[in-house]
Formats: sequence, structure tokens, C-alpha cells
Amino acid sequence: MSDQGILAVVSGFSGAGKGTLIRAMLDKYHNYALSVSATTRAPREGEEDGREYFFVSREKFQQMIEEEQLIEHAQYVNNYYGTPRQYVFQQMADGKDVILEIEIQGALKIKERFPEALLLFVTPPSADELKRRLIGRGTENLDVIDKRLHRAAAEAEGINSYDYILINDTVERCAEEMHRLIQAQHRKVSANLDFIGQMKSELKAI
Amino acid sequence: MSDQGILAVVSGFSGAGKGTLIRAMLDKYHNYALSVSATTRAPREGEEDGREYFFVSREKFQQMIEEEQLIEHAQYVNNYYGTPRQYVFQQMADGKDVILEIEIQGALKIKERFPEALLLFVTPPSADELKRRLIGRGTENLDVIDKRLHRAAAEAEGINSYDYILINDTVERCAEEMHRLIQAQHRKVSANLDFIGQMKSELKAI
Repeated sequence: MSDQGILAVVSGFSGAGKGTLIRAMLDKYHNYALSVSATTRAPREGEEDGREYFFVSREKFQQMIEEEQLIEHAQYVNNYYGTPRQYVFQQMADGKDVILEIEIQGALKIKERFPEALLLFVTPPSADELKRRLIGRGTENLDVIDKRLHRAAAEAEGINSYDYILINDTVERCAEEMHRLIQAQHRKVSANLDFIGQMKSELKAI
Repeated sequence: MSDQGILAVVSGFSGAGKGTLIRAMLDKYHNYALSVSATTRAPREGEEDGREYFFVSREKFQQMIEEEQLIEHAQYVNNYYGTPRQYVFQQMADGKDVILEIEIQGALKIKERFPEALLLFVTPPSADELKRRLIGRGTENLDVIDKRLHRAAAEAEGINSYDYILINDTVERCAEEMHRLIQAQHRKVSANLDFIGQMKSELKAI
């Protein structure tokens, strides 16, 4: 019905399970394209350039900003993160729904520049559950976990700027819900102005 | 998650199949309450007071307006139609999602007074298809059909004030889509302010 893809921004507390949800959704449904961010942070064990992130130097990142190759960028714990423009727009033009997994500063910039973007915020069912998941992941020391929890408290202040909240209780249910919320955007009146315009002309011509 | 029901307004061209869609959705899912409008128009064959409409006199309708028993009312082809307030609010407070099948004037008034209401517009896939369905229904003469089509042309101008457009190609698919769009409202940030507030306090207390 609408040919243009949806731009869906997924944010959420560290430990809320955004990555797992997105992978589950992309495994099941194939109309999505996952935007890969550029970052100046070092790769973690097992991460691959061009898959989790494009790992670039600070100089390269600066150049990308200057050449307007990024639709948003933000700083987070001394590193830069940004969304390369070309891939996103190309995929949307091809009718793919593009998923951006970015943090809250970036999400708000996207909404400012692209009001039709859909902003989803993923949260565990409670703060206690968030803490349990961060500890259970076992990849970070307690100091880092504590920092993340305090950061979460700050980030929570931004939730009200999002469109929908997704409570990640079980991956399968929540991934399905995320899919439905994104697909619903294709039925927005604003996504169907061509169809509506045609209907209007046809009705006038009867 | 959110205890309050959703207020969903369903409009659409006469002949678009709104009534059939709503019945299909209510047959399948049971968290809905269908608001019954009051009207001054005469019952059609087979219509029952309190089921399709509350059929009332002009004097009674006037009294309902004066006593603020209606959340909206509008005139359509010399008759009045209105939505009784008490039933809608009671059902929503009980957590039911309330469906109002009303025409465009009424829908816009609802949106003005209740910005959180969800406005859905049902349309056949094309103007030609709309004409075919009106003729096929066989309950009206050609003069009435012609009037309806011209009315549809006027109504089409209002579609842009709706939130979503539903293309009624097959009843089952479209009723399912209507259900999903309404359920998505429960995930709106604005429908979850209590949960978000609690999450914020819990994170601050960690």
C-alpha cells in the first residue's frame, strides 16, 4: 500500500534486551534492514567490523560528520556513535523498514529531523529485573553495572518522548509486538497520502 | 499494563463495511464494548432499539443534549445522532476498549475533546469498488446510492484528520488489523505514565 519503508528507532536501558529482540524479529520477518552504526569505541570480543558496528577512528568519525554522512551522532561514555545516512535512505526507498538501535540522545535527534520516525523504548518489567539481568550477563564488573543503573535512571527521564513502550517479559511475545507496532505505521494516514489523494480524485470523478 | 480502556472511533464511507468488520472483531476478541448511539432517525427493517441504536424522539434527543448526556452529537441527512456518555466512560474505566462507529463530524469532535482517542477510517480498495458494494447491497435505490457517493467525495476530505486508514479488502484480514491497531494503543507511552513513573522512582532508589 505505502511503498516507502518505515524508520523505526529502538532504544532502551542497557540490559533490557533490545539486541536480542531485534534479532528475533529479523529472524522471523524479512522486510527489515538493520542500520549499522559507526562508532569510535573499540570492538568487544567477538564483534565484527560492519556487523555490530563500523569501527572507525576519531579522525574518520569527524570527517563523516563534516561530510554530512551521518543522520545523527552522539557521545556516550567518551565514545562517538552515529548513523550513516546513505544506507538508511536507500533501504527505505527500496521499501524496507529500517531499524536503528540507538540510545536516547540520538533517538530524540532523529525524531526532531524525521517526525514520522517511530520511537520504541524497551524496558524490563521492573527496575529490579533490570538489575538482575545486568548482573546475570556477567560481562561487566559491579562498578560498570552500577554506572549503567545510574545511567538508566537518567535515561528514564527521556521515555516520555518515545511513541511506544515495550515491556520485554518474553522475547518471542515482545518481538512479535515490536513487529506489529512497526507494521501498524504503514496504515498511518500520513503514510498513505498518495492512496488517499487517488481515492479523492476517483470519488470526485464519479 | 494500562488499566484504562482505549476509545476507538471507526468511521468510513457508507458501504465500506465498517459494521461487518466491527462485528467480526467483536466475535473473535472479547475485550471490546460497542457503544450504541442515540438517533432520531426511524428504525430500518430488522433494527432493534438498544442494539443498532437507541431510537429516540427529537424532544428526548434535545433533552439529552441539554443534560450533557452525549459526548458528541451531529446531524446527518435531517436526523440527529449522538454518543451517550455514561456507557462509554463506564466501560473504559472497567478496562474495556470501547468502539464508536460514528461518522466523520462526530469523530472529529471526539478527537478534539479526547486527543487520546484513536481514529480509524475504513475504505474499500477503490472508489469503483465502493460503488459496486453500494449497488450490490440492494437495499437502496440508485438515487440514494448516488447521494451516498457524492457524500463519500465530501467525506474523503476529512480522512487526513484520522490516525489510521484501513483498506477493507477481506473482512478477516482487515478485522484482525483493526484489532492490532487498537491493541497497539495500550503500548503508547501516554497510556503507560503510571508504569513509567514507577520505573523512574525504582531506578532512583537503587
